Amino acid sequence: MRPFTFINAAMSADGKISTSLRKQVRISGDNDFARVDHLRAGADAVMVGIGTVLGDDPSLTIKSDNLRRAHKEKYGYDNPIRIVVDSMARTPIEADIFIKGDAERIIAVCEQAPKQQVEELKKKSTIITSGNAQVDLNILMSSLHQKGIHTLMVEGGATLNWSLISQGLVDEIYTYIGAVILGGEKAPTLVDGIGFSSRKQATGLELISIEKIDDGVLLKWRVLKTV
Amino acid sequence: MRPFTFINAAMSADGKISTSLRKQVRISGDNDFARVDHLRAGADAVMVGIGTVLGDDPSLTIKSDNLRRAHKEKYGYDNPIRIVVDSMARTPIEADIFIKGDAERIIAVCEQAPKQQVEELKKKSTIITSGNAQVDLNILMSSLHQKGIHTLMVEGGATLNWSLISQGLVDEIYTYIGAVILGGEKAPTLVDGIGFSSRKQATGLELISIEKIDDGVLLKWRVLKTV
Repeated sequence: MRPFTFINAAMSADGKISTSLRKQVRISGDNDFARVDHLRAGADAVMVGIGTVLGDDPSLTIKSDNLRRAHKEKYGYDNPIRIVVDSMARTPIEADIFIKGDAERIIAVCEQAPKQQVEELKKKSTIITSGNAQVDLNILMSSLHQKGIHTLMVEGGATLNWSLISQGLVDEIYTYIGAVILGGEKAPTLVDGIGFSSRKQATGLELISIEKIDDGVLLKWRVLKTV
Repeated sequence: MRPFTFINAAMSADGKISTSLRKQVRISGDNDFARVDHLRAGADAVMVGIGTVLGDDPSLTIKSDNLRRAHKEKYGYDNPIRIVVDSMARTPIEADIFIKGDAERIIAVCEQAPKQQVEELKKKSTIITSGNAQVDLNILMSSLHQKGIHTLMVEGGATLNWSLISQGLVDEIYTYIGAVILGGEKAPTLVDGIGFSSRKQATGLELISIEKIDDGVLLKWRVLKTV
């Protein structure tokens, strides 16, 4: 048992989620930002990888006052639970995810994570430990489901997306494709990692919907289960 | 003066044009193949980079009998002129581009290309030399226009796409987005190269059209000129 899990990301028309210098850039517009805010508000929890925390330092809070109010009525908190997949417990204590907004934070670490750093993070978050040298995502997902997290929004980055997709832990993928070419063989894409070595091993999708938003396009894909 | 130039490529939902092992995979379906065949038949010439020749060995011929006949009536040949951007003259003599189909082949080399290899290629193609250590694409484009090539279709790969886009030599980009995730930080994407270092320097696009084809989506973009 695991949460219903969807990835949401904005990418350039050539599949990049940031520049080759890993600098986050504005790819979408105001209407897409509002859409993402809605998605966040409707999820029990929001998840990112440690690379995204170190690179972008996002707060992952709900931006709209109305949505925050509605969220508080339903959940008792302004914001969704925020989760960082952070095998070695590298999340900085001063990260925006700790400073901004209310609601529980979960840091998912592995058994080899430095004890002292884990103790520091424990003061500000719930620690879920799984796996030896890196987080065991299957166990983590099961733990999250047991905690009552039934819809999970993943907001990147490329490495976490790969880990989740390659392990069959994603149900839907929403990609906003922006009206820009970023280029760069080293620029992070929607899904990095080792990659699939053949079409047969690759993860198949089914197109759910196409929607023009701002200057770009939102594609919603259902992930097809591989047996 | 240069040809009206458009890039056509099929990419996975995460922006990859082949696997991380650089193995070409089927991303689109029969209807999209037919569309590409039409595009080829309507272009004065088709261009690829040497990486694509060495990796995929495409013939770049027109596949439909009807389209070939129509092309012959208009141009006198079954196929469009085929061009390889190949600074160091590495195109193999036994490449499919030489073996299959009729019409002129053009190999664009630079001044430092090995003389003997250039002589070999000259037996099977027209050689256009420009640039010192690599092909000067601005000069090449001007030469092609002078030869009467007024519409040019670029079929990749990632490095040639970057060179053309970053030098402002592309008018439109058609991307077919297939229903598959390939993943891989080393997998070639639609546009590789060094990449733009900021949003301000990046190439802006304007969405022309969205069309559902087979299991995926075709996006047509107009390239906005940067001054």
